[in-house]
Order: sequence, then structure tokens, then C-alpha cells
Amino acid sequence: MMSLIHHNAQSGTSFFSQLQQKMNVSVCRSFSPSNYMRDYSVEEDPKLAEFLTWRLVDHPYETDMRAKKLTTHAEIIQESRRVLINLLTDLIGPIQNVMLLEIATYSNKGDPAIAAGEVMLLREMNKTIVYYCETHSCNKKKNMLLEKSISDNFTKDNLVILMQGGGNVIGYQSIDQIRSLIMDRYPEHRKILLSQSIWLNKNSNNSLISARIIYSNRTNLTMFLRDRQSLEIAKQSFQGVKLILAPDMAFGLGALPRQMPPMYDIIWLRRKDEESAKYAMPKVQNNVSIHISDWLNEWSSNVGTRDMETSFLIAFSGINFLQRGRVVVTDRLHGHILSTLLNIPHVLIDNPPFYKLSSFHQSWTYSLSNSVIINNGTNALDAAIKLLSIYDRVLPPVGPIDMNRFTKL
Amino acid sequence: MMSLIHHNAQSGTSFFSQLQQKMNVSVCRSFSPSNYMRDYSVEEDPKLAEFLTWRLVDHPYETDMRAKKLTTHAEIIQESRRVLINLLTDLIGPIQNVMLLEIATYSNKGDPAIAAGEVMLLREMNKTIVYYCETHSCNKKKNMLLEKSISDNFTKDNLVILMQGGGNVIGYQSIDQIRSLIMDRYPEHRKILLSQSIWLNKNSNNSLISARIIYSNRTNLTMFLRDRQSLEIAKQSFQGVKLILAPDMAFGLGALPRQMPPMYDIIWLRRKDEESAKYAMPKVQNNVSIHISDWLNEWSSNVGTRDMETSFLIAFSGINFLQRGRVVVTDRLHGHILSTLLNIPHVLIDNPPFYKLSSFHQSWTYSLSNSVIINNGTNALDAAIKLLSIYDRVLPPVGPIDMNRFTKL
Repeated sequence: MMSLIHHNAQSGTSFFSQLQQKMNVSVCRSFSPSNYMRDYSVEEDPKLAEFLTWRLVDHPYETDMRAKKLTTHAEIIQESRRVLINLLTDLIGPIQNVMLLEIATYSNKGDPAIAAGEVMLLREMNKTIVYYCETHSCNKKKNMLLEKSISDNFTKDNLVILMQGGGNVIGYQSIDQIRSLIMDRYPEHRKILLSQSIWLNKNSNNSLISARIIYSNRTNLTMFLRDRQSLEIAKQSFQGVKLILAPDMAFGLGALPRQMPPMYDIIWLRRKDEESAKYAMPKVQNNVSIHISDWLNEWSSNVGTRDMETSFLIAFSGINFLQRGRVVVTDRLHGHILSTLLNIPHVLIDNPPFYKLSSFHQSWTYSLSNSVIINNGTNALDAAIKLLSIYDRVLPPVGPIDMNRFTKL
Repeated sequence: MMSLIHHNAQSGTSFFSQLQQKMNVSVCRSFSPSNYMRDYSVEEDPKLAEFLTWRLVDHPYETDMRAKKLTTHAEIIQESRRVLINLLTDLIGPIQNVMLLEIATYSNKGDPAIAAGEVMLLREMNKTIVYYCETHSCNKKKNMLLEKSISDNFTKDNLVILMQGGGNVIGYQSIDQIRSLIMDRYPEHRKILLSQSIWLNKNSNNSLISARIIYSNRTNLTMFLRDRQSLEIAKQSFQGVKLILAPDMAFGLGALPRQMPPMYDIIWLRRKDEESAKYAMPKVQNNVSIHISDWLNEWSSNVGTRDMETSFLIAFSGINFLQRGRVVVTDRLHGHILSTLLNIPHVLIDNPPFYKLSSFHQSWTYSLSNSVIINNGTNALDAAIKLLSIYDRVLPPVGPIDMNRFTKL
């Protein structure tokens, strides 16, 4: 194993240099809303080729038909963005202006990455965000006055209300309540709750009852669910609302290059909150450098001048956290999604009994070749070491290789 | 000007996607210490072609002959690294082991970037860092005991003492004192003080007197100076020591890709400490988004498990600070150097009466085409706006373009 961390010693910076030399080349593609099948989507399977021509709002439960077959991060990112743009193109229609109500600036990295992805995707679609608010401030009086002064400039047919994706429907009741108040303000506008998953846990009875009321019989509400387990719960629980299976909004960030040299062979992102599967940690061999921590409270970010900037800064501090590893192990969904954007080989640890990760993986990243899904800590470590071996010659080497040479300073 | 920030709306993420698609290609070049002229250094000017064959330790004051003629960031980075490796190959010789005494973990970003660059360059040269210490802890008793227990394993002919580069010779007397104690511990070892500049100010009389003693008549000490102004002061002040003009060690990081979408048209890095030129700020037009701050105390970084990791994290938080701008204005030297690594078009503001920036620029980045040197704030803003215009079609667009649309939330 020692050879793992000594290979590629000379290519560390040329790796980045090569990237950089490509950076002046920027090709602009024109975006046409009616062009569902873009020219770079080459698909040889006749069924999938036909799928590429679909208006996906007409096939709301079949949107993952192609993504789950794709093996590279580039194809999966491309397809996820295509699906989202295909859906939003019809749902938003020719309307230019949107409000993005509730964006996350809390420190879990995943939700801010979703917010940043939403902003980038809307940018690609040339939509204008005329107003946005941070989740916990959307319903403050001062902000609601500002929101109203802006929404008053538009008719209901010229403004779409977007609510942010995440994993907080039912499972985090307070956020359902925030959205309930928002939706009550726009009874006649088109509203889209962007890609969510539903977390049902032992305390969810009350939340489920109130969520049924909040999300049922909402005129013009469309709800994106990012996995089939959540879609089924939504089908059973919410009536009179359009439900669509859709990829996570963080794919809106697109593919990202690594920037910092890795510090460790393995970065292990281990969540410590209630959603954790609480698996046992294996004993780590001495010849592999590994760092284990959560990114919720232990990894800080800078604060921007606006909440929207703060979302980006938190999202990219999550990316910074992950790129410290040559490979990643993660039990957080956005450890998986951001590693996919970065093309970092990684191991997902599922979180039974919630299965948030495997349910997502089955729809969108099932065939991703440099990613493995595992159900316990020991197997995860073995899988990570195998990834290090398989991808050794294409991964950037650990930069400060001598960092751990002697007793901690 | 409004068009500046609306162009390229659709290419923002494909810009990164294209980069990412190149990432699996990694070419390993073998490093040969005697191979001064590497195969990719194509030089048509006969004088410079000959320069590429030189053993640069024999031409210590002519090392910048080629760098100052180069116009692209890729060439300048390549040449700076070549010069450093050429010099260190002869100075370290076949000795495998080095100690890197004093690396910076303070928050000025530049010095940690120097430390990280040193680590990456030594990695490329396949040298082993058998011990390192953070600047202010090198002379603590516990660390000195550890250092001694390690250095005792090597003869004086099998260990080289490296002291970190920076801008702190004479100008920051306490750091000269730290190095004095370090050098006293290794009277017979080869010692290299990596690329420094000298800051002479109105309080420097005492520091100059003590520095003359500290750096003169040191057996086997070589001192790299990163600009000619500092080289001249060193020639006049220090006797019996080898002086060499050499590029900044942060070039050891190599070229870096942008990772985060820009947040502003212009990031203005304005230092607030004693080295500032204290120029007046111009009035900014409303149609350009700009953010002005220092990165010393206003931009935080995470702390690593080891000091060496912390150096990297601080360096890359500086890079994160800069990449928020489509273009950069900087009065800090490492705002210039890191912008060069990132290929961000930028404006340098010189700091008379010290001329730290212009003196560096004249040797190493004089012909860099997407960089301008300026001596006051108003001209700097005009130059930055001109850079935005010239490079509009190749720069990534501002991501959260609607961030500033309404009153601050």
C-alpha cells in the first residue's frame, strides 16, 4: 500500500498546469428552450434516444431512465442538468422572472450547494431572480414587505415562485411551516418546490399530518422529488399537486475541477446528527492517511456581503473539505453529489433505516463507475482503499506527503 | 458597461465542464536533476535559448533574464519553477533530506502560500521533508528536542536546512531573530533562506544592524532574494554569504484552475497594515459590482490537523478570496502572484516608498499580458474596468448575477 501514496510525485502540479492551459478556451452554446435534445447528447440505445426527445413534464415518474445508465461523472452531470432544464423550461415557460424563496445559509454545506446550483441553473436559463430570501428570514416582517413591493410589480402570469430543494419535507417540520406561509402568499402563482427528499422518522407523525395539509390541493404547485422512495411517500400523502421525479439541484453547479492538492489519501465525511446510520468505524491501517470528521460544525466558511454569496461560500467550503482527499468516503448525500461534480472517486455509506443515499443513487448515479455504495464502515474502508489502488495513476498525489512524518506539532 | 456582466450567461458551467473533462489525463514526466533544459521549453531567441542551458548558481544575478520577457501565466509559472529547480538542484545536490524550518500559519495568505509552494516544489524534486516547524514554535524547547532527535540521524552532508521565503528580512526583526537561533543550531550544514524581499522602513535602523550580524559570514548560507531592490540591499548589508535572485516560492503551487463562479466583477484586495501605500479609493460606478477588503483579518480559514495542512488551507482560502472576482485589483504581492497562478486578469497597485510590488514585477512578471501595474486607486479602477472589457468573453460570468438586485438582506 505504501506505493499508493508515493506514485505520481512529479505530476502533481503538471496535473493542474494541464488543466489551466485549457482555461482560455470557452465555447458558448446557444440555449434554445424548445431544444430538448442537445447536440452533444449522443445516445445509441434507441429507447434512450427517444427518451431524449421527450417533454419530461408529460413523463413525471420516468425522468431517471437515462441517468441511471450513465457511467461517467460528465455524462451524469450533463443528463441531470438536461432533465432539470427540460422540466423547468415547460414549468416556468416564457415567464422571465422568478422569486427564489428560502435559500440556505446554514452550515450543512448540502443545502447551500443546492441554493448555488439553483442560481447557476437559472442563470443558464437566463431567468431573472427578482427576489430571494434566506430560509429563516423569509417570513420576517421587513423582508415580507420588501418581497411584496417587488411581487406587486408582476402579475401572477409573469412571476414564478421557486422554493428551494433539500431533504427537509416532513422531516424538518419548521421548514414545512415556513413554506406554508410562503405558499399562502401566492395562491394563484405557479409554484415549484425544487428537488426534495422526504425524511420519515419516529417523530414524523405530527409532521406528516401537517405536511398533508400544507402540500395538498395547492393550485399550481409542482413538487420535485429527488428519489423514488420520497416520490412514493409524496404520492400517498399529498393530493391535488403535481409530483415529478427530478435530480438534485446541486447538479446546477456543473462539473468542477479540483483546485487544492489532496492532504490525505482518504477524507471520511461522517455525519453526527440524527440522520446518521451510526455505523462502527473500522481500524485504519498505518500506511493510509485518513481524516474523519463531519462538515456541519467542524468546518467553517466565510460570510458574504449577501446571503446568496454566503450560500456559494458555504457550498465551496464543502468542496474544499472534500478535495482534501484523494478519495472520499461519505454518509452525507452531498458528500456523494459534490464528489461526483469534482470527479473524486468515492464510497457512499447508506443510512438505513432511512435509505436517503441508496434511494437517490438508484435513480441518478447508479452506474457511476468511480463510486461504490456500501452499508457498513469496514466495507467502506476496504472499498476506499480499492479505489485508491484502481485510480492511483490518475489521482493527484497527496501534496504535503511528509506532513505526518513525525509527532504532531 | 452593463453588457459586461450579462455576457457568457450560458457558458458559465460548460467552462468548468470542459476543464473537468480533461482531468483524467495526467502525464508523468520523469525528473532528471541534470536536465536544465526541459523539452517543453521552446525558446527561439538565441540568447534566451542559451540561458536555458545555464547552471544558474553560476549566474546568481541573471536568473530573471527570461521570465521578464514572457507574456502568459503558463510560461511565467513554468519558467519560475524551472529557475527554482535549477538552483535548488545544485544547492541541495544529491542530498535526499531537508528540514523546512519555519513555515507560516498566520493569516496573511501570502506566507502560507509560500510554504505550500515550497512543499509542492520539494515534492516535485522528490526531496523528503524530515522535519518542519511553524515560525513561532520552531524555537520552543519541546520542538527543538524533537528537531534534534531527528537531525541527529543525519550527518551534515546528508541534511539541508531550508528556511522559508517571504517578505520579512530586516522589516520584521522578530523573524530574523528566530532564523538566527535556527542557523546557530546548524553551523556546518548547507542552509538556504528561500526567496525573500527586504522591507526597509523608518523603524529599520536597529533591525538592519542586527540583520547584518545575523546574515553575514554564515558558512554555507545561501540567500534567495526575490527582487533586485532587495538584492542590492543584501549585497550592501550582508558579507560572506551567497546571494541569488530567485522567484517567489508560491510559484511552486503551479497553475491553478478557477473553481468557484465569480461573485463580483472586481475583487479589490486592499491591505490595511503598515506596508500599505494608503492610496485614496475612487468612486465606483453603479454598473460594476465590486468588493473591497483586506484578507488579513477579514477572511478566515480552517485549521488543519497539522501546521503544514493549515498552511495549505490558508493559502487556498486566499485563492478562494481572489476567485470571487472576474478580475482582481491588489496592492498585496501575493494578490498578484496567486492571481497569476489562477490566470485572473489583475491590476497591481505599487506601494511607494517601498516598491515591493514593482520591484518584484520588474524581474518576474514584467510582460504578463493580462496584468497591469498602476500607482494610484483611480487609475487602478479604470484599468480593472478595461481588463473586464478586454477579457469579457473568456472570463467566467458572475454566478449570482441577481445578488445585488435589491436592498441588502
